[in-house]
Amino acid sequence: MSFKVTILGTGAAVPTLSRGTTSQMINCQQRSILIDCGEATQIQMRKFKVKFQNVQLILISHLHGDHVFGLPGLISTMQLLGRKKALTIIGPKGIKAFLLTQFKIVGLYNGFPIHFSELDEKQEGIIFEDKCLKISTFPLKHRIPTHGYRIDEKPGKRRLNKQAFDQTGVSNSYIEKLLSGADIKDNSGVIVKSEDVTYPHKPTKSYAFCSDTAYHLPIINHIKNIDLLYHEATFIDKEGDRAVETYHSTAKQAAAIALKAKAKRLILGHFSARYKNMETHLEEAQTIFDSVFIPSDGEVFNI
Amino acid sequence: MSFKVTILGTGAAVPTLSRGTTSQMINCQQRSILIDCGEATQIQMRKFKVKFQNVQLILISHLHGDHVFGLPGLISTMQLLGRKKALTIIGPKGIKAFLLTQFKIVGLYNGFPIHFSELDEKQEGIIFEDKCLKISTFPLKHRIPTHGYRIDEKPGKRRLNKQAFDQTGVSNSYIEKLLSGADIKDNSGVIVKSEDVTYPHKPTKSYAFCSDTAYHLPIINHIKNIDLLYHEATFIDKEGDRAVETYHSTAKQAAAIALKAKAKRLILGHFSARYKNMETHLEEAQTIFDSVFIPSDGEVFNI
Repeated sequence: MSFKVTILGTGAAVPTLSRGTTSQMINCQQRSILIDCGEATQIQMRKFKVKFQNVQLILISHLHGDHVFGLPGLISTMQLLGRKKALTIIGPKGIKAFLLTQFKIVGLYNGFPIHFSELDEKQEGIIFEDKCLKISTFPLKHRIPTHGYRIDEKPGKRRLNKQAFDQTGVSNSYIEKLLSGADIKDNSGVIVKSEDVTYPHKPTKSYAFCSDTAYHLPIINHIKNIDLLYHEATFIDKEGDRAVETYHSTAKQAAAIALKAKAKRLILGHFSARYKNMETHLEEAQTIFDSVFIPSDGEVFNI
Repeated sequence: MSFKVTILGTGAAVPTLSRGTTSQMINCQQRSILIDCGEATQIQMRKFKVKFQNVQLILISHLHGDHVFGLPGLISTMQLLGRKKALTIIGPKGIKAFLLTQFKIVGLYNGFPIHFSELDEKQEGIIFEDKCLKISTFPLKHRIPTHGYRIDEKPGKRRLNKQAFDQTGVSNSYIEKLLSGADIKDNSGVIVKSEDVTYPHKPTKSYAFCSDTAYHLPIINHIKNIDLLYHEATFIDKEGDRAVETYHSTAKQAAAIALKAKAKRLILGHFSARYKNMETHLEEAQTIFDSVFIPSDGEVFNI
């Protein structure tokens, strides 16, 4: 079961030729979830061969242009290419008005249903759940209400130990129940314990997205032991004052959050266009946390 | 004095990797005028090294997404990079609300003044004029109110015939007046005729932009003898019915407009993403009009 993140844009507010604005595609157990959608996200998706008609859920962190200006164009293209499947958009208060007022002005018809869910400013906890995964939100600390997201796989079924099962002699029709973890008794009274004929499910994995945010310790409670953490690192140490002023983080601060949360791996992003390369981001973060990655646009991280 | 058009996007509603949505930069006598601004126009500008802080005027043809979705991001970037110079935006009714409602939602501050001028649905005639050029508008025929634009250089000064001027013996202080076309009489009563000591100004050039539009003969009156005509050609002959349904044109129809208007050269564009190459567009247009060009994104036409 695959769980991967494709980084569609690694830049901050001003897009450059090498670093687009924030957007990430999460593919988790055949679910396609887009987080944020800066301008030209649909073009980045084409460039990196990411299928956008499969997206069923879009999560928006906050209403700054570099996180939402690509949304009207993406939805327009989905409609023009014949999408009928419903789409859910979860984000801050105002996301619905942002889209619907534009759609009205440009005369975009409703080719497919869009369900909106607007979060409260300080909302915490689960906001989406199905049989495969659950998504929770938590507040970040930015100039406007901003939401972090955490995606957790749910445990899958246990896996069959075929040799052990065959020795029990019970009918194959009991397999599903045994895989679900329940013990069974067959028609002839034979009792089979699930744990005797199945292996445990694979460990579940988790991903968290934290952009844009100042250094904010309460985040840690929501991302403990996360397998992969994305935390913005707009600046390096030298611009620490600028980070404070603009409610952004430095690479070191992102690393400190990863360390304190006992994250396994950390991806940085939302790099200010002032930096020609990210070597200093990497060096500074690695003084605090080992497993740090500086992604390029289009880079894929398997979780 | 240079007058050139940089084609920033040659595609129709759905952008592809090779063809962006509609936008063109017109550089005319040190004026920078942007026409239309589909999604990712600011990125195309970077790609093709087109300076966007110099843009003083943006003309918008109509309120379909592929002509305006790049405008909020471009203006946001202009602000973030410190622009102070005023910007004028001329377009259909609704363009002001389209931008200002978004700016309010995403909290974009007013870093520089933006002046809006909204056109009436069937408006014709001059909408902008300065000492170097004049811009007029005329109605196109599309599903919603859509405006064509024509940019005409104004005659420059006459050019000095230095040898003839020197023979008159009058003071250099009369040169400006003579270049403006006026005759002069100096302090000692010597009369000098402008036409005796100056050459005529260079011929003025003109450019017209027609997108999006059905085949619409009244356009011809507004673009007679134009030096360079851009006319949309979304479809080829085979999709003629689709052109009628969607109020777009075929390559042949664009060529017929160019021929009837006695245009000198014709650029096609707004190509539907269904076409892998534009050979048929070119062939079909050339059955009617010789001087046809199929631009690539980034191509520059000197007028």
